[in-house]
Amino acid sequence: MDYVKLNKSRHAVKFFDGKKIPTVDVKQIISAASLAPSAHNIQSWHFVIVESVEKRAKLLEEVRPKNREQVEQAGAVIVLFSDTDLAERSREIARLGGNELTDEQLLNFNSRYPQMFENFEELYESNYLSINIGLIAMNLVLAIKNYGYESNLILGFERTEKINDILEVERRYRPELIVPLGNSDTKGKPSYRLPQDRIMEIR
Amino acid sequence: MDYVKLNKSRHAVKFFDGKKIPTVDVKQIISAASLAPSAHNIQSWHFVIVESVEKRAKLLEEVRPKNREQVEQAGAVIVLFSDTDLAERSREIARLGGNELTDEQLLNFNSRYPQMFENFEELYESNYLSINIGLIAMNLVLAIKNYGYESNLILGFERTEKINDILEVERRYRPELIVPLGNSDTKGKPSYRLPQDRIMEIR
Repeated sequence: MDYVKLNKSRHAVKFFDGKKIPTVDVKQIISAASLAPSAHNIQSWHFVIVESVEKRAKLLEEVRPKNREQVEQAGAVIVLFSDTDLAERSREIARLGGNELTDEQLLNFNSRYPQMFENFEELYESNYLSINIGLIAMNLVLAIKNYGYESNLILGFERTEKINDILEVERRYRPELIVPLGNSDTKGKPSYRLPQDRIMEIR
Repeated sequence: MDYVKLNKSRHAVKFFDGKKIPTVDVKQIISAASLAPSAHNIQSWHFVIVESVEKRAKLLEEVRPKNREQVEQAGAVIVLFSDTDLAERSREIARLGGNELTDEQLLNFNSRYPQMFENFEELYESNYLSINIGLIAMNLVLAIKNYGYESNLILGFERTEKINDILEVERRYRPELIVPLGNSDTKGKPSYRLPQDRIMEIR
């Protein structure tokens, strides 16, 4: 779909018809979303597709009551995590991307970035991860809509290691967002936007 | 442009031809980007278009040396801030959006959300703001590319109140990203992406 049209027609949708989305679609959506940029191209995102009925039920218990129905009825549920082991991820990129990376990039991912990440202060690192999550989440909701599905981004859940335990995901990953997606009779409607003069200044 | 094509052709570009982009284009790009979703629809972003030659020169001094040339040569420079006064912003949305909001939404923005924001812990709030910045930044780079321009996202600068002072921006706003954009002979090239099995798990 044309980007302008896609951008204008994408709205948060919280009601789904319960019909499962094929995993192959979800994978292709994630593949499109993953073209998002990230700081230092570190791609610090980790997607978990929740297919187990039991795991989805346990996940529901960690979601605030008003957000439960959408997670229950979604055609697929993605839990988005951040990789908190940035140094290791950086070296992993060097290992896996070896053939596609320049010598300069290899040096960055192998040693300069890991050293930089080790020196990140806690708050800085946390924000760094969160910005990357925002980047991928925006591209994810666009990719979902472009595929003909609706979605919502949920921050309202207990973002603790209990999510890792329920989903059997390594604790190196930090839970960030739950993304229910699916078919819906509701297409959503535009949310209020502040006028431009309240969000913009010229200097 | 078709979203799939746009998404695939958007790459970080760090070289610009120095020709100024009309302010009206930058405003329309910001308008498109602002359709991004945000947590609680709080729209906690604040765009500053740097048009003053003196201010851009001072800003350069806060940018790491390797990032300076792109900021110098860009056809426009946007500095993206977060609004750290979420409670006030929430009430502002209630005031300005009055006619377009439902009674329930008015109650949220007027009193429930401000109360919630007052109770946010520092780290949680910081991540909340950063996720919103990532969301708007992704939509911004797509909107820029769709308008025929190239861009880059720069985290590599001193993100302190000195930026506010240079740009004469209220300290309530926290500097997040510098976004140089413009015309370029360079169209950028795809960056390495991790294989899907390293960023995705099915549970």
